[in-house]
Amino acid sequence: MSLPKPGPMSLVPFVSVEGMMQLILQQGVEGMLVDLAAYIEDDFRRWEQFDKTPRIAAHSPEGVIELMPTSDGRSYGFKYVNGHPKNFQSGRQTVTAFGVLSDVDTGYPVLITEMTLLTALRTAATSALVAKYLMPKGARTMAMIGNGAQSEFQCLAFKAICGIDTIRLYDIDPNATQKAVHNLQGKGLTVVACKTGEEAIEGADIITTCTADKQFATILTDNMVGSGVHINAIGGDCPGKTELHRDILTRSDIFVEFPPQTRIEGEIQQLPEDHPVTEFWQVVTGATKGRTSDRQITLFDSVGFATEDFSALRYINELVRQSDAFQKLDLLADPDDPRDLFGMIERYGRGMDAA
Amino acid sequence: MSLPKPGPMSLVPFVSVEGMMQLILQQGVEGMLVDLAAYIEDDFRRWEQFDKTPRIAAHSPEGVIELMPTSDGRSYGFKYVNGHPKNFQSGRQTVTAFGVLSDVDTGYPVLITEMTLLTALRTAATSALVAKYLMPKGARTMAMIGNGAQSEFQCLAFKAICGIDTIRLYDIDPNATQKAVHNLQGKGLTVVACKTGEEAIEGADIITTCTADKQFATILTDNMVGSGVHINAIGGDCPGKTELHRDILTRSDIFVEFPPQTRIEGEIQQLPEDHPVTEFWQVVTGATKGRTSDRQITLFDSVGFATEDFSALRYINELVRQSDAFQKLDLLADPDDPRDLFGMIERYGRGMDAA
Repeated sequence: MSLPKPGPMSLVPFVSVEGMMQLILQQGVEGMLVDLAAYIEDDFRRWEQFDKTPRIAAHSPEGVIELMPTSDGRSYGFKYVNGHPKNFQSGRQTVTAFGVLSDVDTGYPVLITEMTLLTALRTAATSALVAKYLMPKGARTMAMIGNGAQSEFQCLAFKAICGIDTIRLYDIDPNATQKAVHNLQGKGLTVVACKTGEEAIEGADIITTCTADKQFATILTDNMVGSGVHINAIGGDCPGKTELHRDILTRSDIFVEFPPQTRIEGEIQQLPEDHPVTEFWQVVTGATKGRTSDRQITLFDSVGFATEDFSALRYINELVRQSDAFQKLDLLADPDDPRDLFGMIERYGRGMDAA
Repeated sequence: MSLPKPGPMSLVPFVSVEGMMQLILQQGVEGMLVDLAAYIEDDFRRWEQFDKTPRIAAHSPEGVIELMPTSDGRSYGFKYVNGHPKNFQSGRQTVTAFGVLSDVDTGYPVLITEMTLLTALRTAATSALVAKYLMPKGARTMAMIGNGAQSEFQCLAFKAICGIDTIRLYDIDPNATQKAVHNLQGKGLTVVACKTGEEAIEGADIITTCTADKQFATILTDNMVGSGVHINAIGGDCPGKTELHRDILTRSDIFVEFPPQTRIEGEIQQLPEDHPVTEFWQVVTGATKGRTSDRQITLFDSVGFATEDFSALRYINELVRQSDAFQKLDLLADPDDPRDLFGMIERYGRGMDAA
């Protein structure tokens, strides 16, 4: 007598880190960024269909653990993500993540996936998508301040989606910059390593800031930022963590994902609660204008929102089913009679005894 | 050249449904219920250390999907759980669940586990733990109304933890009752199948209600409930879903897990918001009294709270490491240099090409 096998309804596809790398290599990094941006744009366009809530954050002295759920009424998705700036010291990732997509009608998960890599990709795809709507015309040069794990994805997303051809890199740690220079070789970008933040933003049409200290920092000061640029501010994404001087914010037109979350977590936590911001989805639908002049400073105060992860989960769920880049996890108890959970255990035990 | 292996920090222990069945059989159902009750009791005793928040529920016409996070400052846990009463019709479970335990200092998950079986066990362990404090002295007989997937676990928990020796079963579906009778054979309980709810509660010291309709139902009416009993009300656990007539509530002393959640989800959603309730953890610490007279009706308005899942995760995390009832999932990207996520993908690609 053989042991009972997991029932078919118990099995949930799982994309491991290795599986995700296979999917990325199959599509190409830039190809996947472009695809992700399209899914994210679609979901911003139907923003009003989503059940939205600020993420649920558990803060601790060392960092934060967050759950980011959302639903469009048909599917439900959530992401688990941490942010621990000191993890670097023990060889761990500052940000790791995994996510789940489920069927709303049954509540059954249909996909579990690593999202450390996927979050890096969706964050970059979102940044470039937003910049496509807001950057000055003819933008070619981006300053990339902070050359950590997110930086190469940002650079390639802006190349593939916005037509950026020159990157000016700066990090307080020159080794991080050298790593990014190395990784971006042969990718069709002109890459310039800079010694200061000031040097990096010389001639830049777009300024991306992506640093990880959990503190009020001032990566950019007001005198560094000229008119007409687009600022893509990624790193200020939790209470007490900002990157830009307040005076830059008051000179800029600020675009956000979901105001109730950004007012807590974004750069605008430095501003009064009623400071005007524009919701990006309204730019996508055409309900409001994005950039209206060459001299305007546009600022995307990015904190990352659950719908972007939902878009990424939706994309991977479709992509992975055309591949073998997944395993099946025996996650959901599936007794012959759904009311007989107890009997399932006993029958399994008898099977073990007999085997 | 071989493909790079997942780094050790990428691997997270995973307990599948099969793994959980192995752990349950190894400990015995009653043994595991007793252990779980001890962990749950410990965590109720240190209730004030927990970061508590009502669960985050996504409601739909067919059911609900919930995330239940909590933390004691050292570990963080959350459970994903659905409740879909009609799932039964398609051979699925009404309630399925999985959970994650993480290290607060790094944000890294340390355990992923199925929790469909574990939730059934922790719910029963919690019920019996609460009854241990509230039931009338010398209680021997329990009425079990609703004989679905949770019922056998309830019966065995009350046997192992409260000394109940007689169970009186009733369900609107006689097949469910027959299933429970069958499963409880040879377990050291006197089991009586009853044809009505009224018959089931005859002589019962404890009345457990555990039915699954998502609607205001009246499993118990006021004239059915005599003085002195303890009512363990499990099934009323989301808005619009209750089991008891309002008049029973007003005659009872009501004990709850976390009032902000119970007022939304429990039987007391039928009562004014300021109706007095006692928080169970205060009974455990001795800050307040439980049962004070033989004639008092005590009512545990149970909805299930995140700390109970946390206790269960903590228990399984300790238990599983002494066994081989787990796999390791390649869940967390672990590049040689934590800032070099991008390079990890490229190196993996070169490894694949060379392999």
